[in-house]
Amino acid sequence: MADAGDVFDVIVIGAGPAGETVAARVVRGGLTAAVVEERLAGGECSYYACIPSKALLRPVGLAAEVRRMPGLELRGAIDTAAVLARRDEAVSHLDDGGQVSWIESVPAVFVRGRGRLAGPLRVDVTRPEGGVRALRARHAVVIATGGDPLIPAIPGLREARPWTNREATSVRRVPKRLIVIGGGPVACEMAQALHALGAEETTMLVRGDCLLGRVEPFAGELLADSLRRSGIDLRFGCTPVRAERPVPGGPVTVHAGDGSVVEADEILVATGRVPAVAGIGLETVGLEGRGPITVDASMRAIGVPGGWLYAVGDVNGRNRLTHMGKYQARVCGDVIVARATGTPDDLPGLRDIADDLGAPQVIFTDPEICAVGRTESQARADGFRVRAVEYDMGAVAGAYLQADGYTGRAKAVVDEDRRVLLGVTFAGPGVADLLHAATIAVTAEIPLDRLWHAVPAFPTVSEIWLRLLEEYGL
Amino acid sequence: MADAGDVFDVIVIGAGPAGETVAARVVRGGLTAAVVEERLAGGECSYYACIPSKALLRPVGLAAEVRRMPGLELRGAIDTAAVLARRDEAVSHLDDGGQVSWIESVPAVFVRGRGRLAGPLRVDVTRPEGGVRALRARHAVVIATGGDPLIPAIPGLREARPWTNREATSVRRVPKRLIVIGGGPVACEMAQALHALGAEETTMLVRGDCLLGRVEPFAGELLADSLRRSGIDLRFGCTPVRAERPVPGGPVTVHAGDGSVVEADEILVATGRVPAVAGIGLETVGLEGRGPITVDASMRAIGVPGGWLYAVGDVNGRNRLTHMGKYQARVCGDVIVARATGTPDDLPGLRDIADDLGAPQVIFTDPEICAVGRTESQARADGFRVRAVEYDMGAVAGAYLQADGYTGRAKAVVDEDRRVLLGVTFAGPGVADLLHAATIAVTAEIPLDRLWHAVPAFPTVSEIWLRLLEEYGL
Repeated sequence: MADAGDVFDVIVIGAGPAGETVAARVVRGGLTAAVVEERLAGGECSYYACIPSKALLRPVGLAAEVRRMPGLELRGAIDTAAVLARRDEAVSHLDDGGQVSWIESVPAVFVRGRGRLAGPLRVDVTRPEGGVRALRARHAVVIATGGDPLIPAIPGLREARPWTNREATSVRRVPKRLIVIGGGPVACEMAQALHALGAEETTMLVRGDCLLGRVEPFAGELLADSLRRSGIDLRFGCTPVRAERPVPGGPVTVHAGDGSVVEADEILVATGRVPAVAGIGLETVGLEGRGPITVDASMRAIGVPGGWLYAVGDVNGRNRLTHMGKYQARVCGDVIVARATGTPDDLPGLRDIADDLGAPQVIFTDPEICAVGRTESQARADGFRVRAVEYDMGAVAGAYLQADGYTGRAKAVVDEDRRVLLGVTFAGPGVADLLHAATIAVTAEIPLDRLWHAVPAFPTVSEIWLRLLEEYGL
Repeated sequence: MADAGDVFDVIVIGAGPAGETVAARVVRGGLTAAVVEERLAGGECSYYACIPSKALLRPVGLAAEVRRMPGLELRGAIDTAAVLARRDEAVSHLDDGGQVSWIESVPAVFVRGRGRLAGPLRVDVTRPEGGVRALRARHAVVIATGGDPLIPAIPGLREARPWTNREATSVRRVPKRLIVIGGGPVACEMAQALHALGAEETTMLVRGDCLLGRVEPFAGELLADSLRRSGIDLRFGCTPVRAERPVPGGPVTVHAGDGSVVEADEILVATGRVPAVAGIGLETVGLEGRGPITVDASMRAIGVPGGWLYAVGDVNGRNRLTHMGKYQARVCGDVIVARATGTPDDLPGLRDIADDLGAPQVIFTDPEICAVGRTESQARADGFRVRAVEYDMGAVAGAYLQADGYTGRAKAVVDEDRRVLLGVTFAGPGVADLLHAATIAVTAEIPLDRLWHAVPAFPTVSEIWLRLLEEYGL
């Protein structure tokens, strides 16, 4: 039987950004919490995703900005060693001491080990040093185990030891020749970063006929142009059918369905992720244990009697973005507190509404791509009466002053019945921080006639807002 | 008596951004328009303010970004000649042919000459080639003559032929030694730009004890630190009392109230602007003809029988920002159309509400400073029950990934009674395009509980929004 030290109001399995945030919110609400993590506290984002990829991409993007600015010239190429050293700083040299201290400062109890459900409100933790610690939760268990890279079932691929986002973002020696399989955000970001940092021969094999299939088509086209101009060999409609690395550590070869063959030093596979639910004991609480954990808008798992199980972040399949995982975690933590303390559990902050509206996303390439809400085709498919407007961002004074030859495009999707924005997309150099204005407009469903009075400062790139509204007819 | 070619529905005096916009909006509404301009079509903004200053500042800011990024190094100093050449392109080499063509494409009639009111609905234009053309308006005359730099009454100053924004932004040879009088946006922007482009000895004489007196104090402090670190000699509490340039074209000397003396090659005076109302015939329509033309929220001049006179932009004293002049012009043009056609003239788009909420403004220095709405002290003075929250932008992941040693600060001012934002200020490198999110939030008066669901994408600098709301207690 568990002693008092092993009973907590809330147990969180997974100490990524989402799990950490749940713990912080429930403790803030007066509950106690334990956070269980087998790997590094801080999660994929801090060590192998957002943080290192942005650290690698920012100097690449900045170098591109300099090349577009007469009067400035870079001395030589990017110093890859310096960029990797800065990346190492950004990921704390893969030491999670700071994150563990942060969790303990919440204060929450950090338990190192592999957490596994062992029936209602029970979590067994297999410690790294061996042995199992049995934890019990009074109110809730939250699964925040994230996701794992998906390696497609291509003969020879797994045996060829391909890189995933982990090896790519923690690269120590940039391969001269790189094959990237995939055309989504991770594939594009890492192809661009590694190519600029030394992967002279970079080949992208993309199954479909475009990059970034989930955003407006023009965004993927602008990015494809940029990647190609930088010298990346971008091949669409190219399905890998076989891979081989005959000599461990030697070159790798990928055969495509069209008969072409590419040889390289490394393969990066970026074809998606799967929820990390294997071995976490979902079957002990009556769930299937395959695929994402389905949750309601309060992040409570569906189909678990007693309603004590929650899931946030990548593992619930709603989204795969750090900021949305943290958002879900704020909702989840607060709703657990409300239910534990018997206060109303349906206040405005206690439901995830942002994922349904269409989560904001930024792809940190050059050009940057960012979008929130629905694309035009998604909005039509969802039955809205839609009008879309587009504008050339290079024609905005704030943009062409920013860079010679500024190339970009923006699009707004309007719900004609309510005259509110359903979605906004920006593609262009340095547009990432333009997105939040759109996120506010879409989330708060601000009528266009009110947005009309929100005047963008001249000459910022944000003047694109005026142009889009004028295009619409305001 | 005027012939048919000299009668228009609307006559606009002044072809700056505000005047051009009025013409475009009234023509779009089915009216005819003439635009009268004595100087360059396009106005101060296009040739001597926003556009050239941003063209000068952007490479300076970008060079600073490179210095904050390990792995990139600039070859030598900024190439001033290249920057000035790009500035020349940005101002179309002071040729307004493109702007005149744009006005004619509206289509509106462009009349070159000095416009002067000559009684109700009448404008006399003194042509550059001599002679007066008498124009008559059917519905409205709009004054959009802008402003002129204010040269303070300091003995010897005018005789010393100081620079204003015009000479500073159109600089051909950067003086080695520069005195800047003033501490507002123009003084700070031009001091930083010219110092970086060759004014090795730059001295700023500021009467008060801070820079940028109208924004939150921390913003001026961050900028002062930056200017000083770059080597600018920034002197507060320093009132010039006498200036002299004994030899035309020779050095100039400024004596300050504290007994100090500074010698330089040029003086830049940036101590404010005055509405350009001299000689435009306001007395012929019963107005005083001194100070700004007071208007109501539809931009109609107060005190003119018949209500046919309007004023937009700097000349009405509401604001001195290009984007707000253009905003007023959209309101004004649309309301003139409504009144001319007998449709309702009080629809949502037909009143200036943004100026009262607090216009957005960006100062394009490094760090950039931007703000919208009220400062904390303005909000308190206006009687709101206020709570303000601040956050260190350098602690936001998206910011410290952007630059090593990122230094910045943000502040939000909340109306506690309505739980909406009254004002937001950002100060930090590259924050200009963060502002529009705040402008939307302040203008649309979005409740904080709704803003909470607008999730900033990770890792962008916009995550400052989450931090501010968390600081507030959400």
